[in-house]
Amino acid sequence: MAVIESEELPYFATYVSIVILKMMLLSPLTSYFRHTRNVFSNQEDMGSLKEKDKKPIFDDPEVERVRRCHRNDLENIVPFFALGLLYALTSGAATTTIVWHYRIFVASRFLHTIAYIGALPQPSRGLSFFVGFFVNVSMAVQIIMNSWNF
Amino acid sequence: MAVIESEELPYFATYVSIVILKMMLLSPLTSYFRHTRNVFSNQEDMGSLKEKDKKPIFDDPEVERVRRCHRNDLENIVPFFALGLLYALTSGAATTTIVWHYRIFVASRFLHTIAYIGALPQPSRGLSFFVGFFVNVSMAVQIIMNSWNF
Amino acid sequence: MAVIESEELPYFATYVSIVILKMMLLSPLTSYFRHTRNVFSNQEDMGSLKEKDKKPIFDDPEVERVRRCHRNDLENIVPFFALGLLYALTSGAATTTIVWHYRIFVASRFLHTIAYIGALPQPSRGLSFFVGFFVNVSMAVQIIMNSWNF
Repeated sequence: MAVIESEELPYFATYVSIVILKMMLLSPLTSYFRHTRNVFSNQEDMGSLKEKDKKPIFDDPEVERVRRCHRNDLENIVPFFALGLLYALTSGAATTTIVWHYRIFVASRFLHTIAYIGALPQPSRGLSFFVGFFVNVSMAVQIIMNSWNF
Repeated sequence: MAVIESEELPYFATYVSIVILKMMLLSPLTSYFRHTRNVFSNQEDMGSLKEKDKKPIFDDPEVERVRRCHRNDLENIVPFFALGLLYALTSGAATTTIVWHYRIFVASRFLHTIAYIGALPQPSRGLSFFVGFFVNVSMAVQIIMNSWNF
Repeated sequence: MAVIESEELPYFATYVSIVILKMMLLSPLTSYFRHTRNVFSNQEDMGSLKEKDKKPIFDDPEVERVRRCHRNDLENIVPFFALGLLYALTSGAATTTIVWHYRIFVASRFLHTIAYIGALPQPSRGLSFFVGFFVNVSMAVQIIMNSWNF
């Protein structure tokens, strides 16, 4: 056990774990679409297919949609983890301010996933992306202003 | 030097560094396949090719296999880093329990890479993926139960 | 606010925030190229197009170039965050040594992005990649040597 003490750490741990579990669920979802639609990238995954169907498929709309969603999660949740941790550890911001950054980010990523997987009409996906993006920018700017050492 | 004290931190530091070095090695491996097979994505990388061969290639089976392996690493090692750190810092779990989570995860990712790059018959890759995935889920659930603040 | 004390943490926070902001800017840059060139992956993004043009496009050279750059950033900045944090927290290295690792890495990734997006002649992109890669390897090796617990 560690001696690190931070009022925000339990919040951070909770929100990060939730949003990472959400991201991780896209792996079995990809797998589900691959198996129900027989869309595989690797020869060794095609054991259930007839010999003539054993071709890799890289352009299935459903599978690729989930993979784009997963990649977008990586591109945004990685910054959130790094910035969210440093925001709690180094910024002088009030606990409430910090925790609301976490809440809004996590909510925005759930909405983004729903909009992406459900192919909802724009600007639902664009807006949810932008909200999460802006939370990350806000944390980054405050971290830089507060701990500036170059 | 930091004042953070944690029995698990030296283990975490060791295992994270090892598994990240493993992941990073996929970059030079991709580069190796690109150069031995003359498979490039960017015009500026094709200096060694004849003018008529200067076409980007995005479907070479070997190169794309390494890239999928690398991407799968990112999708799983990023959660491991975030969850593994918070698991050590916030969960009340015993050191042995924590360290075995690290050990099993790192072993599973080495097996996953071997199965992926070697195109070993399934379910070798699927099983190694699932073991690592389950370690991450286990850590996430324990973190959430222990530090629940919403 | 946390009690963690580390001379290197303010440097780390500054450099990580800067390099992550740089990485995040590739999202709006991708979006910019998608909209100016009418290159979309998702049907729901094509509202502005005529019915006959509503086809997903996955091989636009400019858009895919930015996306490869973004992916390369993920593959390298994720290790930097994990290793850079553990390097400050667990290695016995001098502050100057640590901070110069950060500086060189961040500089190398800015040069890498400029070389990639600008399609500059090789070996500019290769060299900048290699410098950042080597900084990560250096930190990983020092972390492992200093906190070895297996």
